[in-house]
Amino acid sequence: MKNKIRASIIGVTGYAGYELVRLLAGHPDVDLARLVSRQEPQPRIQDIFPHLRGVCDIQCSALDAEALCRESDVIFFALPHTVTMEVMPRFIDRGVKIIDLSGDYRMDDADVYQAAYKTSHTDRENLGKFVYGLPEVNADRVTNADYIANPGCFPTGIQIALKPFLRAGLINTDRIFVDSKTGVSGGGRKPKPAFHYPEINENMLAYKVAEHQHEPEIEQELSKVAGRDVDIIFVPHLTPMTRGIFNTIYAELLTDADEAALHKALADEFTDSPFVRVMPLGESPQIKHVTHTNFCDVGMKKKGKNLILMSCIDNLIKGASGQAIQNMNLMFGLNTVAGLI
Amino acid sequence: MKNKIRASIIGVTGYAGYELVRLLAGHPDVDLARLVSRQEPQPRIQDIFPHLRGVCDIQCSALDAEALCRESDVIFFALPHTVTMEVMPRFIDRGVKIIDLSGDYRMDDADVYQAAYKTSHTDRENLGKFVYGLPEVNADRVTNADYIANPGCFPTGIQIALKPFLRAGLINTDRIFVDSKTGVSGGGRKPKPAFHYPEINENMLAYKVAEHQHEPEIEQELSKVAGRDVDIIFVPHLTPMTRGIFNTIYAELLTDADEAALHKALADEFTDSPFVRVMPLGESPQIKHVTHTNFCDVGMKKKGKNLILMSCIDNLIKGASGQAIQNMNLMFGLNTVAGLI
Amino acid sequence: MKNKIRASIIGVTGYAGYELVRLLAGHPDVDLARLVSRQEPQPRIQDIFPHLRGVCDIQCSALDAEALCRESDVIFFALPHTVTMEVMPRFIDRGVKIIDLSGDYRMDDADVYQAAYKTSHTDRENLGKFVYGLPEVNADRVTNADYIANPGCFPTGIQIALKPFLRAGLINTDRIFVDSKTGVSGGGRKPKPAFHYPEINENMLAYKVAEHQHEPEIEQELSKVAGRDVDIIFVPHLTPMTRGIFNTIYAELLTDADEAALHKALADEFTDSPFVRVMPLGESPQIKHVTHTNFCDVGMKKKGKNLILMSCIDNLIKGASGQAIQNMNLMFGLNTVAGLI
Amino acid sequence: MKNKIRASIIGVTGYAGYELVRLLAGHPDVDLARLVSRQEPQPRIQDIFPHLRGVCDIQCSALDAEALCRESDVIFFALPHTVTMEVMPRFIDRGVKIIDLSGDYRMDDADVYQAAYKTSHTDRENLGKFVYGLPEVNADRVTNADYIANPGCFPTGIQIALKPFLRAGLINTDRIFVDSKTGVSGGGRKPKPAFHYPEINENMLAYKVAEHQHEPEIEQELSKVAGRDVDIIFVPHLTPMTRGIFNTIYAELLTDADEAALHKALADEFTDSPFVRVMPLGESPQIKHVTHTNFCDVGMKKKGKNLILMSCIDNLIKGASGQAIQNMNLMFGLNTVAGLI
Repeated sequence: MKNKIRASIIGVTGYAGYELVRLLAGHPDVDLARLVSRQEPQPRIQDIFPHLRGVCDIQCSALDAEALCRESDVIFFALPHTVTMEVMPRFIDRGVKIIDLSGDYRMDDADVYQAAYKTSHTDRENLGKFVYGLPEVNADRVTNADYIANPGCFPTGIQIALKPFLRAGLINTDRIFVDSKTGVSGGGRKPKPAFHYPEINENMLAYKVAEHQHEPEIEQELSKVAGRDVDIIFVPHLTPMTRGIFNTIYAELLTDADEAALHKALADEFTDSPFVRVMPLGESPQIKHVTHTNFCDVGMKKKGKNLILMSCIDNLIKGASGQAIQNMNLMFGLNTVAGLI
Repeated sequence: MKNKIRASIIGVTGYAGYELVRLLAGHPDVDLARLVSRQEPQPRIQDIFPHLRGVCDIQCSALDAEALCRESDVIFFALPHTVTMEVMPRFIDRGVKIIDLSGDYRMDDADVYQAAYKTSHTDRENLGKFVYGLPEVNADRVTNADYIANPGCFPTGIQIALKPFLRAGLINTDRIFVDSKTGVSGGGRKPKPAFHYPEINENMLAYKVAEHQHEPEIEQELSKVAGRDVDIIFVPHLTPMTRGIFNTIYAELLTDADEAALHKALADEFTDSPFVRVMPLGESPQIKHVTHTNFCDVGMKKKGKNLILMSCIDNLIKGASGQAIQNMNLMFGLNTVAGLI
Repeated sequence: MKNKIRASIIGVTGYAGYELVRLLAGHPDVDLARLVSRQEPQPRIQDIFPHLRGVCDIQCSALDAEALCRESDVIFFALPHTVTMEVMPRFIDRGVKIIDLSGDYRMDDADVYQAAYKTSHTDRENLGKFVYGLPEVNADRVTNADYIANPGCFPTGIQIALKPFLRAGLINTDRIFVDSKTGVSGGGRKPKPAFHYPEINENMLAYKVAEHQHEPEIEQELSKVAGRDVDIIFVPHLTPMTRGIFNTIYAELLTDADEAALHKALADEFTDSPFVRVMPLGESPQIKHVTHTNFCDVGMKKKGKNLILMSCIDNLIKGASGQAIQNMNLMFGLNTVAGLI
Repeated sequence: MKNKIRASIIGVTGYAGYELVRLLAGHPDVDLARLVSRQEPQPRIQDIFPHLRGVCDIQCSALDAEALCRESDVIFFALPHTVTMEVMPRFIDRGVKIIDLSGDYRMDDADVYQAAYKTSHTDRENLGKFVYGLPEVNADRVTNADYIANPGCFPTGIQIALKPFLRAGLINTDRIFVDSKTGVSGGGRKPKPAFHYPEINENMLAYKVAEHQHEPEIEQELSKVAGRDVDIIFVPHLTPMTRGIFNTIYAELLTDADEAALHKALADEFTDSPFVRVMPLGESPQIKHVTHTNFCDVGMKKKGKNLILMSCIDNLIKGASGQAIQNMNLMFGLNTVAGLI
């Protein structure tokens, strides 16, 4: 019997951290090593998340880079951006693989990072060592990576839906409109007025309209896929759900291919992607069909010379923790779906 | 003291009918005359909607065209489409004004109606007698109308947001993407699997993608505003709210005007429209700010050569019953906001 | 035409303050005078609550007791408890009527207040000048009062349901179990972890079990009604709704009266109470039937020697602002329902 | 390697059936054999529940008792009551174990069944062969059973909370008030007006007040625990959640034991019950901590001579499918928590 992978998590008090603990605790090839929180005194994980009582009972500990590197084969970082890049250098080149769920190592260019996150990047040295970890687009690079920058929740479903059409040059890259609707857990676990139940229940609003920090991430990665600059107009909406993202994407078609042919191209693209499910023509994906799963469901519709794409994910699973584990599975040569289906 | 307007309602068991009763019961210039339901035996309105107990106690009656025309100055029709056009001929040219909330008299062309509603129009004779009643676009015609086709819930907020830009020729009319999100009450009061609480709570989906019957209605009316054909790609989404619509609209700008100038054009357009509130730049409209009101809140953002418009209404008020009363106010020379603010 | 009542509100940034502004702005016999907030710089009320844009545009001002007393006939206090009693002395014996929505002047005994609110009462001198303002129980005293302590949201619906049975000595006062379910707006407008959307959506919990500060308020007032000590075991639950309270009350019957007779006693009690609606036997009250109204709907069931009572209110209307206006109507000799139906 | 248990399910189109498929598909010791639906033509399970696409792809089949008995070691019945007892006789004494999730075989006495379900029992012969399967109360009997009547969703959490106190004679059995709050999925998957999203969202009501068919089930089983007749006054409430039940139970204490001693008795009772988690004193259970799990969380509070108990379950898991699998685990000598944690 082969040894299990020892996995540690830094940052376990947020929703992504919680899902990581829950999923890794049930992963057949993984032993949880250390869980690091910033609370004092250090809590047991089940005291932070009573849902885990009787399932996982680990005493959290402080951030001790030595011990973490010694006792782990892989470390998941689930810290807020900027906090991540402060501590990351202590873990690089220590022989432990790293999967970072923050936005700190996703951008190729530190200046683009600065423009998106309104703060300068403090670890430019290591920025280039991270591979952007979206297996449906670049599984090969993930497989060979030591350091993964896990994609943002919005970029995940958007890139998956657009990839086949951009790669084949079927749509106009000058103007792709992306209308995303997210549940409130995407905003994190810290109470804020916009996330106060009486404020967002029975409500909906757009925010960071065409100014969201995920827009340059989407453009950077899709430009690689398209082989040319892609211009995304990205409008996220906050909606009264706990979890889930629904993306609706509007683009001008450059092809005369009919709807069936376009749909076939979409379906063919993901034949070997166990977590992408392409809807039949005429059927919309639905958030409830992906909730608590690592699936990304994709649908499409052609109207005149226009393409409408729809994709759904669970923002905390395929949009964060599940995808991180999918990346881990690839990095360690495990079954892609281990611990996830 | 002048006489009050005698108003009757045909079809009081749906959500729009309920809101009509509630609003008209509180309207200072109106007396409710007859409420017509199709239930047997005829219920009291408070038995259908217990919310009205202690507020409005009227015994419903069957559809008696003679009595209705004799006892009413205005009749509101809140029947399903196709049912409306069956009974409508009995009320035309009887000296009573009519405001129809169904889709049956909104289309100028019976063939377009047939394509949209998948059924042939059975009252082509009277189709041309109805004025499309969106006061923010054609208050003059409404004021002089005897018969009003009250706009659909989606078309209302979409037309208001687009009007200033189409009228001035500022956007490309070949390709306007409209992404709408609606609460469940828009689907009516009849239980269906898609509206079953466990199915739509914590869920979201698109439906009738680029095939919704409101798309030709929007195109017909906006083409008049633009003075040329307007092509709308309309994607409605069902979202877990009881009421409210949020429209996000994406268009290519044909002007070099800067964001402030565009915003000024938007604000100036509605200076005299008491129910349109234009958000400051940088602020999204929110559904909760219009819930239970007749307001339409509109916001905008420019990114590059693209225009993003956002508008919110309460689908049952500005999207149905409130707008019907606003039309009535104009038709009878009352204060536009009477009974609505 | 008689002069309108000049009403001011101290504390307009919370949910109760908002509802007061909205309801008083539409009250036919009231002119809004001053709105007092503690924000700096002072906002316009429509900037705090965009819902009011186009409806009410008043510049808020700082707390100036002189100006408030001079320019107001009645002042509503919608401040948090403890803050209220700090400022109240400046307004007593100044010729202006006062309606306080906080808990500071509800208890007859400062020691009971201290036990309930875990803080000592700092205005014992004026405590006795306030009349507990629940018109369904003591309309006579309210009518003649200058100073009203407006009841808590939970106590309102509980007292109304129990009053007829306690007054007639029909139930055992040693042990009355009250199970209440409240929407989240009852917890106020300040974000807290328990009210964070992802935490309370799809969730439910009990809190302050048999230790809620409303328990002694309920016992104090019901003991007066019963003419003997009443022991309430009160368990509030936080539930995933924005607004509304559903109370279920369990008591041992001391009478052999049958269900119909008990129901008749209940219905007869409230014949002259325009805001109490007694459900027919076999029908439960429902929160949605009272939402956005000042009604309290009451239902009952007898099983063996046990009585089950159910009552519903909108916590922000009948449980706070609507009831405050109902009290004002009585104090100023207006129609009880003015501005409320 | 030992053979896996072959499990079939009759009735897979409801919510309980869905959860059974999902849980059994992931159970390490089970192979799914046949899934029986009543639809024509027979669908694939993933067409009924798109959530299962990519997870479980089984063609449903019609009810063929021969084939089912031949190909299964255990059959789960997830049919509506009355339908179950029509088909059950064909499966008795065929060498296959049965776990029935309906109410048809829970009552010891066919007359009590008739009073509760308003229909006469048509399979009295086999009624006595079924063991009531609540492992926290009677694990021994379950272990040796061939036929299990799986408890109702309400009875499960109520019996677990009350068991230690009734067994030890600590509370008055003449009058136990049980106030339960359930999510809407408890009402099944068939759309009905009460479950229509706009009707139950932002709403709450009581139903079948002291007349619910689960009341005699609770009384029957708790009377066995207590060794005397137990009288339950049971009031279920429909609340705006998809899933989960919160029970609050009120009883008179017959003991002078202090709160700590009572709490210790509660905690000690469930030391060996892996699915019962007793909250620390002062902490309420919460539905979100048990959602999608087989746990029952229990809390308590003493006030004077009164005991307040609170318990939470996921109605579809511990209240139905999870409990059925827990029973299967015991019947087949598996680890109690296999496939459930």
